Amino acid sequence: MSTPLEVAQRVLAEQPFSQLIGTRLTAFAAGSAELTLPLTPVLEQQNGFAHGGVVSTMADEGISFAAGSVLGASVLTAEYKINFLRPARGEYLVARGRVVSHSQRQAVCTCEVWSVTDNGETMCAMAMGTVVVPAKGGSDGE
Amino acid sequence: MSTPLEVAQRVLAEQPFSQLIGTRLTAFAAGSAELTLPLTPVLEQQNGFAHGGVVSTMADEGISFAAGSVLGASVLTAEYKINFLRPARGEYLVARGRVVSHSQRQAVCTCEVWSVTDNGETMCAMAMGTVVVPAKGGSDGE
Amino acid sequence: MSTPLEVAQRVLAEQPFSQLIGTRLTAFAAGSAELTLPLTPVLEQQNGFAHGGVVSTMADEGISFAAGSVLGASVLTAEYKINFLRPARGEYLVARGRVVSHSQRQAVCTCEVWSVTDNGETMCAMAMGTVVVPAKGGSDGE
Amino acid sequence: MSTPLEVAQRVLAEQPFSQLIGTRLTAFAAGSAELTLPLTPVLEQQNGFAHGGVVSTMADEGISFAAGSVLGASVLTAEYKINFLRPARGEYLVARGRVVSHSQRQAVCTCEVWSVTDNGETMCAMAMGTVVVPAKGGSDGE
Repeated sequence: MSTPLEVAQRVLAEQPFSQLIGTRLTAFAAGSAELTLPLTPVLEQQNGFAHGGVVSTMADEGISFAAGSVLGASVLTAEYKINFLRPARGEYLVARGRVVSHSQRQAVCTCEVWSVTDNGETMCAMAMGTVVVPAKGGSDGE
Repeated sequence: MSTPLEVAQRVLAEQPFSQLIGTRLTAFAAGSAELTLPLTPVLEQQNGFAHGGVVSTMADEGISFAAGSVLGASVLTAEYKINFLRPARGEYLVARGRVVSHSQRQAVCTCEVWSVTDNGETMCAMAMGTVVVPAKGGSDGE
Repeated sequence: MSTPLEVAQRVLAEQPFSQLIGTRLTAFAAGSAELTLPLTPVLEQQNGFAHGGVVSTMADEGISFAAGSVLGASVLTAEYKINFLRPARGEYLVARGRVVSHSQRQAVCTCEVWSVTDNGETMCAMAMGTVVVPAKGGSDGE
Repeated sequence: MSTPLEVAQRVLAEQPFSQLIGTRLTAFAAGSAELTLPLTPVLEQQNGFAHGGVVSTMADEGISFAAGSVLGASVLTAEYKINFLRPARGEYLVARGRVVSHSQRQAVCTCEVWSVTDNGETMCAMAMGTVVVPAKGGSDGE
């Protein structure tokens, strides 16, 4: 039988874009999720740091997988906000999502994104957003 | 001599991650910028739509290039917020960034992200954020 | 018979806090709403500008009344983000809310807040947020 | 000699709008601040809950006073985002601001707003934002 972590890892594995950049789901429990991304040159912007879109992707995934841990696998990020705190560099990025509050249909989550090097961890971004369970059969993309 | 569009296109070309996903800068004028991204399967999430991280990347780039049109090439996105309005699908995504207000060191911008198909355009996300000129020689990643 | 503007004005009149600060609904049409607030000393912070909470209240009301113009009177602001662009001062603040996208249950709106003096108008804040129709009989505050 | 809490309380006391609604600064330490607001009918919207503008004001003050604890008294909120989680009601609202990351000129903070009744506390909103030290002599409202 699959653990919740394994089930969630399969959802991530079905996302071609997550596979392209290399995100891995490294922890998953009720109310939280952690994703890890080895940094490679192809993920950089012009100054050698991870591109803002990469950090955003990590934040989006941290928020949506944390929400999925309490809402189930069928969720959509409705909106989020991200503050970039420091340049994202190092060996890995780690996104740690956490559910702040939720109902059966919706969760508000935060996500911290950390740069990891041999010397330790530095928080490089923080995000907060809303994840929803889409209405069944609805055409409502919101 | 290079046009401002060509100069900005070279900045984009120096971003490995933008090259990886395939973003192109298709318009650039004082106060606005437009980026275009042909959608391919590798950019999708598990339901066949463009991944939220792809849409976020487009929004981030629309905001930062619009800001760069009034602040110069050395800019950092400090923060942004994005609302996902509808699933992002179609032939192309087009991000249209616009400067709302700016000083010499900072700009607040909006960006609309549109899905483009043969049948027309649909707005799939809207974002708003702050872009700054980093202090020279400073170690302040904020 | 009441016009839509008059109906919406009655909703605003039923909000004691809006009465306390003095907000007036000055325009209301499908997809947009305008609120006007005469600035008085009691609305200021320590430097003689309108308090951020006052500007936020205007933005929140601009977003929620614009949404109400397409969703009906029973709406709740779920979330919003605001960027303060310049100090808010002058004779009046004017908040102009606009629906960007909506379904039957939800609207994403923007709102510009303008400072108005004898010499003209200056945008002092811009906001974007989500407004929802709460589920009937539900205890779900989200 | 004044304690840091007393100094910060004087800043709050100089804000006419904070006096109007009744906010009190109840804790203040390096990296955090707590504000308390007794709820009265004049602070409500049409359904008997605290108005979104009141909750927003609490969040704005929690963010800016937390930032002030590390940046000094002369700070401006540049932007924030707020998610409303549940209706705000009860005897008191308590806003708890916390610095996530800061330099000498800028801080990114979060703020939780809690409803307090005899039966306990419930989180009713969460916010995140950026606070800056304005440039001296500058006319840059951003």
